[in-house]
Amino acid sequence: MKTNATNRASLAELSKLVLDFRHERDWKQFHNPKDQALSLVLEAAELLELMQWRNGRELEKFLKANKPRVEDELADVLGWVLLMAHDLKINLGEAFARKIELNKKKYPVEKARGSARKYTEL
Amino acid sequence: MKTNATNRASLAELSKLVLDFRHERDWKQFHNPKDQALSLVLEAAELLELMQWRNGRELEKFLKANKPRVEDELADVLGWVLLMAHDLKINLGEAFARKIELNKKKYPVEKARGSARKYTEL
Amino acid sequence: MKTNATNRASLAELSKLVLDFRHERDWKQFHNPKDQALSLVLEAAELLELMQWRNGRELEKFLKANKPRVEDELADVLGWVLLMAHDLKINLGEAFARKIELNKKKYPVEKARGSARKYTEL
Amino acid sequence: MKTNATNRASLAELSKLVLDFRHERDWKQFHNPKDQALSLVLEAAELLELMQWRNGRELEKFLKANKPRVEDELADVLGWVLLMAHDLKINLGEAFARKIELNKKKYPVEKARGSARKYTEL
Repeated sequence: MKTNATNRASLAELSKLVLDFRHERDWKQFHNPKDQALSLVLEAAELLELMQWRNGRELEKFLKANKPRVEDELADVLGWVLLMAHDLKINLGEAFARKIELNKKKYPVEKARGSARKYTEL
Repeated sequence: MKTNATNRASLAELSKLVLDFRHERDWKQFHNPKDQALSLVLEAAELLELMQWRNGRELEKFLKANKPRVEDELADVLGWVLLMAHDLKINLGEAFARKIELNKKKYPVEKARGSARKYTEL
Repeated sequence: MKTNATNRASLAELSKLVLDFRHERDWKQFHNPKDQALSLVLEAAELLELMQWRNGRELEKFLKANKPRVEDELADVLGWVLLMAHDLKINLGEAFARKIELNKKKYPVEKARGSARKYTEL
Repeated sequence: MKTNATNRASLAELSKLVLDFRHERDWKQFHNPKDQALSLVLEAAELLELMQWRNGRELEKFLKANKPRVEDELADVLGWVLLMAHDLKINLGEAFARKIELNKKKYPVEKARGSARKYTEL
């Protein structure tokens, strides 16, 4: 079966894709939370590696020319986020909306708006 | 406006939450891809930090007792994934489905199924 | 010229090895602190990757059987530490001794001694 | 006893400082290689965090003004490198010199010298 999705896909639908993939390979047995979080960090590091020694215009050009690699790394990161949320019985959509609310309180518009100084020192 | 969502929310809907949050604070100006990828790594590291020096049953218990912290870190990671995908004009849903297809070829069921050895050395 | 060293080598001597290596290739021009710190994280991640999906006795056996890989990753991490310290005009030996003193105050023996609970929650 | 050291201190001397610190607290029991490598990544991430959202001249100024924080993070990273090398019976000085030799072969001066393109694509 082909897996199709767009940004209109729900977290539940995307989770199903990666859960089915895992189930078919019987890999859940290896997925303890520590190795999952470790894997998430490693995939995030692979994304960061694309930026290593590249800056400004050169980086922009590189990322455009290598869009599929960026897409793959972001997809890998998302995969671990979805698997961890599933295994730890976390409703990721709810958690996400709640965290945004929390951040709204932490960074009130009137104080946070605009300058880099405010951004890093709030 | 309150932000509500569940796992039935789409990537597009969740992206809107974090994009609105950013827009209200005028923070897009700071969001170059390098600092975003760096931030993604740092948030993933914060998740990993919850696992530091904890293993087995003790870790399981800790994660259950501290579920909101895990949720917050996963949400933060997801936030950067969504922002990066948006800014780099990546359709994350499509990218995700395509990466799963790629992984299916890379790890064919008949070869990948089951043992840890196969899992790490395929 | 061959580069020889043992654990009796000083930080200054080891720094010279990697500084000479860099100088011969004229690479200092690329070494801004951000990309250096990023590189340090990436090398640390490569070391961590050796541990991915491996635990307990299996991990121990793997690390023994793959000692040269562990050595290479630790060496790469050390290389970035030495280069960063040099470029930022940090006396790493002094900084290290001072940080140990700081940690002694932060984790006094009578409070820190022994249990995992104390270790993670001090 | 005060711990003094400079860059003329040997790896063996610096290792002794952190080994004594650990021994006095009876913490070796927690130091499995996986949690050590994980801790190394986390300390490297703390160093990287100092660079987050800061670039160019602003970053330079920040690092100068916050030199003790940079020193502390580099010291923490070095601490884990020394402990891991010790526990895995690695002669870090030898490993370091050997890795430099390896890199000399991997990046021969005539090919590697100078341009960023060569640097990232060798």
